[in-house]
Amino acid sequence: MTSHQPIMTLEELRAFFDREFPQIHEGGRTYHIEAIGPLSATMRMDYHDRHLRPGGTISGPAMMGLADLALYAAILAQIGPVALTVTTNLNFNFMRKPDQRALIAECRLLKLGRRLAVGEVSIFSEGSSDIVCHATGTYSIPDRR
Amino acid sequence: MTSHQPIMTLEELRAFFDREFPQIHEGGRTYHIEAIGPLSATMRMDYHDRHLRPGGTISGPAMMGLADLALYAAILAQIGPVALTVTTNLNFNFMRKPDQRALIAECRLLKLGRRLAVGEVSIFSEGSSDIVCHATGTYSIPDRR
Amino acid sequence: MTSHQPIMTLEELRAFFDREFPQIHEGGRTYHIEAIGPLSATMRMDYHDRHLRPGGTISGPAMMGLADLALYAAILAQIGPVALTVTTNLNFNFMRKPDQRALIAECRLLKLGRRLAVGEVSIFSEGSSDIVCHATGTYSIPDRR
Amino acid sequence: MTSHQPIMTLEELRAFFDREFPQIHEGGRTYHIEAIGPLSATMRMDYHDRHLRPGGTISGPAMMGLADLALYAAILAQIGPVALTVTTNLNFNFMRKPDQRALIAECRLLKLGRRLAVGEVSIFSEGSSDIVCHATGTYSIPDRR
Repeated sequence: MTSHQPIMTLEELRAFFDREFPQIHEGGRTYHIEAIGPLSATMRMDYHDRHLRPGGTISGPAMMGLADLALYAAILAQIGPVALTVTTNLNFNFMRKPDQRALIAECRLLKLGRRLAVGEVSIFSEGSSDIVCHATGTYSIPDRR
Repeated sequence: MTSHQPIMTLEELRAFFDREFPQIHEGGRTYHIEAIGPLSATMRMDYHDRHLRPGGTISGPAMMGLADLALYAAILAQIGPVALTVTTNLNFNFMRKPDQRALIAECRLLKLGRRLAVGEVSIFSEGSSDIVCHATGTYSIPDRR
Repeated sequence: MTSHQPIMTLEELRAFFDREFPQIHEGGRTYHIEAIGPLSATMRMDYHDRHLRPGGTISGPAMMGLADLALYAAILAQIGPVALTVTTNLNFNFMRKPDQRALIAECRLLKLGRRLAVGEVSIFSEGSSDIVCHATGTYSIPDRR
Repeated sequence: MTSHQPIMTLEELRAFFDREFPQIHEGGRTYHIEAIGPLSATMRMDYHDRHLRPGGTISGPAMMGLADLALYAAILAQIGPVALTVTTNLNFNFMRKPDQRALIAECRLLKLGRRLAVGEVSIFSEGSSDIVCHATGTYSIPDRR
């Protein structure tokens, strides 16, 4: 059985993300892949003006974007830079108002199949153990021949 | 039984959105509330550089943000400018690659309760009847005394 | 472009369901495929003791089972009796307490791809137009060579 | 801050379930609340004929019913026998075919608010650490005055 160690290094994955998702850094680099491991990834989103609503609360779409990126990072770390891997389903539960600080997204893959990958993401305010947002997502992996 | 006509006019709703979500217009006004009706709303998102991935495909998070805004518009049109209404759950199915043109989000409320509202959104590429993304969402309506 | 007419007749689909899901009729025949059409199906679940909680309310799992069957019916009517088609994702919003009468599930397919099918189901109490439960689901279609 | 210890004993919870959900034992007692803890519960569903499809595979609806019961058990263990607590949303990812043996559902509450509770459930075939089905659910807690 496979050990599920990533087949990309952190540097390779970050470089791939910079090429594939340059628009996430528009206005400043706020998304960071912090770590990857067996069937897992950790991503950070800085507390930055463009992710906020008036009053300073981090917006829902900013959190949804972070979750999607974290899942994508965890999957690609495992299968390599398969650029046509696409999100087919995402489900979000928003549970607590985030603090006015960075968000940390911890992603764990639940299944890595030949055609579909499924993972979950827990998003926390940096330094807190209370989940702000929890998501599960399914990604379709294209045929590779 | 109520007729479910909106209690806000389109202009009032647009003004409310400009005050509550000014960050969505950063880089240019690309989100437009096109229409509101009984338990429904239509929102448009222009095809704009900041919503795109390399190659010109509209990003998943751009579509998720559009769906969230459209649902919020439909709910607030019905209950008035209750600013503390928050998203508790969103579920997305991404089904087709969007065209390189504007997106139209058609939102229909399925339930408008005292504490929770539930709606669905179908997102189309402008001019097409094939659903690009379908979402359902639940929003928590705060106690109003 | 295909007309999306079902490729199975109602009788063929009912016979297939009787072979594939005999356990749903345990205790009495309460599930009925009422109609099939282009990318659609209607299923009925009788108001029967084994679907109820004390006090006579139809249980959540009974509704979830109905939604899954209705989606499966709509998909198989389109693609034929492909028995290894399996549910990969289901999302339910429970919105109103059902009446103490039969349930009608109206299913509409949103996407019918080569590998994945996505549909939505609206469940009503017979005779009512208020949605009791709304669901979306994704099904994986096996390779057929 | 609360320690989140359950406020019901395992025996009290089992007795409550027997009163509230007698229909789950129709045909034989196959659902068992195995354990409860802080914001958690474990439930077992025996491998029994009425949960199966031809060929002996456990049905999707049987797993969905198990997840719903496990979440309900975890919530009620924390808040007491509040019978009008109802499911508002459930999202399921079916990831592996279950073995032909009992299922174990491990439930963890992610949020326990005044009005809403959110939890996740991981379902395993007994003796295996591969997740068969993962679910998240939201429950509405009625006002208690």
